[in-house]
Amino acid sequence: MIPIIITIMVLELEPPHGTAVASLAEVLPGWLRYALSFVYVGIYWVNHHALLDRVAKVDSAVLWANLHLLFWMSLIPWVTAWAGENPMAPVPVALYGVVLLLCSVSFMLLSWRLDVEAETGRVHSWGSRKNRMSIALYALAIVLSLWYAPLGAVIHVLLAILWLAPETR
Amino acid sequence: MIPIIITIMVLELEPPHGTAVASLAEVLPGWLRYALSFVYVGIYWVNHHALLDRVAKVDSAVLWANLHLLFWMSLIPWVTAWAGENPMAPVPVALYGVVLLLCSVSFMLLSWRLDVEAETGRVHSWGSRKNRMSIALYALAIVLSLWYAPLGAVIHVLLAILWLAPETR
Amino acid sequence: MIPIIITIMVLELEPPHGTAVASLAEVLPGWLRYALSFVYVGIYWVNHHALLDRVAKVDSAVLWANLHLLFWMSLIPWVTAWAGENPMAPVPVALYGVVLLLCSVSFMLLSWRLDVEAETGRVHSWGSRKNRMSIALYALAIVLSLWYAPLGAVIHVLLAILWLAPETR
Amino acid sequence: MIPIIITIMVLELEPPHGTAVASLAEVLPGWLRYALSFVYVGIYWVNHHALLDRVAKVDSAVLWANLHLLFWMSLIPWVTAWAGENPMAPVPVALYGVVLLLCSVSFMLLSWRLDVEAETGRVHSWGSRKNRMSIALYALAIVLSLWYAPLGAVIHVLLAILWLAPETR
Repeated sequence: MIPIIITIMVLELEPPHGTAVASLAEVLPGWLRYALSFVYVGIYWVNHHALLDRVAKVDSAVLWANLHLLFWMSLIPWVTAWAGENPMAPVPVALYGVVLLLCSVSFMLLSWRLDVEAETGRVHSWGSRKNRMSIALYALAIVLSLWYAPLGAVIHVLLAILWLAPETR
Repeated sequence: MIPIIITIMVLELEPPHGTAVASLAEVLPGWLRYALSFVYVGIYWVNHHALLDRVAKVDSAVLWANLHLLFWMSLIPWVTAWAGENPMAPVPVALYGVVLLLCSVSFMLLSWRLDVEAETGRVHSWGSRKNRMSIALYALAIVLSLWYAPLGAVIHVLLAILWLAPETR
Repeated sequence: MIPIIITIMVLELEPPHGTAVASLAEVLPGWLRYALSFVYVGIYWVNHHALLDRVAKVDSAVLWANLHLLFWMSLIPWVTAWAGENPMAPVPVALYGVVLLLCSVSFMLLSWRLDVEAETGRVHSWGSRKNRMSIALYALAIVLSLWYAPLGAVIHVLLAILWLAPETR
Repeated sequence: MIPIIITIMVLELEPPHGTAVASLAEVLPGWLRYALSFVYVGIYWVNHHALLDRVAKVDSAVLWANLHLLFWMSLIPWVTAWAGENPMAPVPVALYGVVLLLCSVSFMLLSWRLDVEAETGRVHSWGSRKNRMSIALYALAIVLSLWYAPLGAVIHVLLAILWLAPETR
């Protein structure tokens, strides 16, 4: 379902109205927001794959934890469209952050559930340290967006870079 | 095909027109209807998977029983859009119930067909007792919706909870 | 790709404008056209599956014969939308027939190519007799549609029933 | 994800406004642009498949090189819609060429990364000679499009034929 989410997002991207080079500038913010969402969904795609690869058997609790994550991810195209059409408007940028926060929390719940399944005795993964730090930063971005939207947008970009960049195994 | 249905539903969800917090309230009913449909398609996804896992070989009768189910499920995004754009309007809520009823009946027909294939001698599954009760409640919801739409909507929510909650094997 | 085609077709189906029962009558022709297209794509799904199951190895000629079929099938949602929005208008109904004809011809070319691959010596499958008869009837439907559209629509329905019904192995 | 891209492109293709034969002429340029994009995505589908078939194990660098390619391919439906709605307008035709160029470059980067993984000692595939020549021609098409758009469109068609035609192994 993640490849479908990542692909349909482009349908929310309107073609420019004119045919001048200037009309490209008009769609640029929506396009950058699309690129950012593409990177986020891509990060989830890669990590989700790595997470489920470790799993031997899924029961219905895992299936629902997975659907819970997919629900919040399915809202990414919608909130990308809203934030892209209204660049740097406080509420859309904040809502974008809310959806990213909920994706992050539900990813943590899924990996926690998989740990319980694995009966490893100790439940270590309330997400990695990086995961917990991200959640705090998403929350901060929401508050800052409502005050001055570009600050929220900068945090969204920085977090995407954080998740893309190190990838130490 | 079920992951595609669940994902494209979000395309029917319009971004709000303004950028104020109040504009989110305006799209809230459509959003809740989307969440409800997501849960329903999710329930079918999980149960459909469980149903087909038991099957060794499919013939064309099973394929067509399956396509029959998918046909009614493919209408969920369309009826979700209509009911979501016109919250608590009698006819859209009733039609939403009609589509859920037909999904339920065609799921029952598919599981019945799979039983015939399995040549188990006795055909036990005109659906489970829960399945038959659901069909009666969907029918009730259709009638009540035409009289007072919120009653139908409440039954749709209760039935989703019923199917989500117990899941005893 | 066929499950994607069959699913996105529903996106071309507009929700009714009002919320009265009468507003359903207004969308009924589009809805019936959708149901007919669903059955056609379903028939191709089942037959395409059966065709490729017999194949051991695909080379690039087979891949392109397959993409050729998928190209014409990808136009079914588009021509369904046009014919559905303009019920019984001669040109849309005729074009619907043209697309079905080209799907049928390209399915025949694909199965012919697979026979060549199989090096069976004799190339028997310029399609089955049913296939060749269908092509003649699609061509007839195109001509009749331009004269009186409902005649074309009747042939489209009859051919769908023909392909659904017997299915003798 | 490539089958999803190729299929959703048809959603950007509007049904004609009237029902006369003449109204088909009006949508013809968009339709031809769709057919060209279908062929391009088809070529990538076939070559991408062949490329990944040779690969034993993917690490995250390969995954991201692959997502990089898919990002530029995901823009094909969008730029097809813009160029199709404004046939032979210089900027849309040039942008179409830019997206094709970036797809080609990212395909080259992916195949280069796969060679590094394979630790073959020598990195031979900055793409094939055909690949490098195509990139030069895409760049030429961009410049020519801005001067006289049909010249760019002719190069796009010729390059599609070049990639379709020989296919010597």
